[in-house]
Amino acid sequence: MAKQQNAPCDVVIVGSVGIDTIETPVEKREGILGGSASYACAASSFFVKTGMVGIVGTDFPKAFMKLYQSFGIDTAGLQVKEGQTFRWSGVYEQNMDHRRTLSTELNVFASFNPELPDAYRKAPYLFLANISPELQLHVLDQVRKPKFVLLDTMDLWINVALDNLRKVIGKVTMLTLNEHEARHLTGAHSLVTAARSLLKLGPRYVCIKKGEHGSILFSKNSISLMPAFPLEKVEDPTGAGDTFAGGFIGALARSGGTSEEAIRKAMTYGSVVASFGVEKFSLDRLRRLTPREIESRATIFRKLGRIL
Amino acid sequence: MAKQQNAPCDVVIVGSVGIDTIETPVEKREGILGGSASYACAASSFFVKTGMVGIVGTDFPKAFMKLYQSFGIDTAGLQVKEGQTFRWSGVYEQNMDHRRTLSTELNVFASFNPELPDAYRKAPYLFLANISPELQLHVLDQVRKPKFVLLDTMDLWINVALDNLRKVIGKVTMLTLNEHEARHLTGAHSLVTAARSLLKLGPRYVCIKKGEHGSILFSKNSISLMPAFPLEKVEDPTGAGDTFAGGFIGALARSGGTSEEAIRKAMTYGSVVASFGVEKFSLDRLRRLTPREIESRATIFRKLGRIL
Repeated sequence: MAKQQNAPCDVVIVGSVGIDTIETPVEKREGILGGSASYACAASSFFVKTGMVGIVGTDFPKAFMKLYQSFGIDTAGLQVKEGQTFRWSGVYEQNMDHRRTLSTELNVFASFNPELPDAYRKAPYLFLANISPELQLHVLDQVRKPKFVLLDTMDLWINVALDNLRKVIGKVTMLTLNEHEARHLTGAHSLVTAARSLLKLGPRYVCIKKGEHGSILFSKNSISLMPAFPLEKVEDPTGAGDTFAGGFIGALARSGGTSEEAIRKAMTYGSVVASFGVEKFSLDRLRRLTPREIESRATIFRKLGRIL
Repeated sequence: MAKQQNAPCDVVIVGSVGIDTIETPVEKREGILGGSASYACAASSFFVKTGMVGIVGTDFPKAFMKLYQSFGIDTAGLQVKEGQTFRWSGVYEQNMDHRRTLSTELNVFASFNPELPDAYRKAPYLFLANISPELQLHVLDQVRKPKFVLLDTMDLWINVALDNLRKVIGKVTMLTLNEHEARHLTGAHSLVTAARSLLKLGPRYVCIKKGEHGSILFSKNSISLMPAFPLEKVEDPTGAGDTFAGGFIGALARSGGTSEEAIRKAMTYGSVVASFGVEKFSLDRLRRLTPREIESRATIFRKLGRIL
């Protein structure tokens, strides 16, 4: 990893790194690599040099660290701390639409204090994946004038850290969250109304994720509809939103832009990478994914989705 | 109406005509015009001459009959029978996603035996909206070589008339049904798998409707994604699927084609007309809708939905 540590990163992503046990109607997989930072960094790494900020315990398998390296992920910002790695287990119901958390062990993640290596601080594109708004604010304080900051969150923070959540939403370029969270946070049922209300908190863009139904991008004066790539088999939807967001920020960084057109193009790539990711558990599909496969599916996707 | 009776229809639609009482979280409306044939014929009438096949009782308000005429709907196939018109009442839950039927009174609809006036029998485009598969088959027997037959159905017929349902599916060009029905009918969770299984029953196209998430068109060798036009306010989603299907068949008939491209273009118009329809109860929005508004929203829709 030494060779990576001094080169600047195009994208920096802070989030969770975990060891997951996941049960679907078809299969149960134990001790697999998970966490928002894992999915998002892997997805972003297809497009640009990506630095990871996270924390793992001393039990974190060397094989997982090697897997990050095989993606070319810069792990200079991944802290290794005495103790156990964050663990999560969950089960998907019959139709994969709903998942139930069976257990969450925060372990070293409970004392996570994200510190950015120097090489990360000038990164032009930043993705604050789902961690507490307080930590997201702390990361924002350490970066110097990023061109574009993407923020994700989750229901938990709406319930227990609403003030800080609103504060960090006010400081980012784009907020991404799922439709349930958008409704929860605003009290509005219509996603158009919810997005308008979220835009008032400060971000220039709000992207509402709808899982297998795609996503919608809102700005003050525009709406863009993005379907999801249709899949016959979904082995494990865990991390789909993180993969979408990671692919998005990586593709946006590769374009070098921040315009609405650049954002829409980057969302296409986020959707495409996420559609591959859910075909297998953990990073099993992404580790075998090639740039050519991404381009090929993006071309098909644009064709399937043309409104005539 | 006399002037309409001898001119041939471009589209014929058979379905229910009802008097509805609908309660949403915001408002309750009693005794309003409903039924699949009402919504579908109104939507189709924006594009071509449309004939309605249905049944009402002698209590059917003259104002509703006049409303059909104001759309230019040919009502030569609408039987008026001694007795009460079909009545339905339902309530939408908090988020408009689920509706509960409070009561259904079949009345004259229980003895419905659809007979097509001569002027209807050569109609090139036919929409068999949601009635029993047995009656749908009976209507099919009366038409001479239609170019395109669209079929809708509902859960009830999957439960009580599966054999006839499969039989009629095998005789039509395109089947449309919602995602729940597609899963119910095939036992597959993936919509791609469900559609493949439905295509094997005979139709050239299967269109799975996903409500506010749009629809997907499947053929043996292709998939087309159609988002829904994003709306801030939905007053009443009743009849959205019928309005979509009616707008679709009308626009397809106007094009004169049956190619996949013609079908995709027609789906755009179906989506647009349906997006207007749900803005108000019953036909309240459609009765004021203009062709210019349809074109204008279709243009916006194509722009919002471009995958870059």
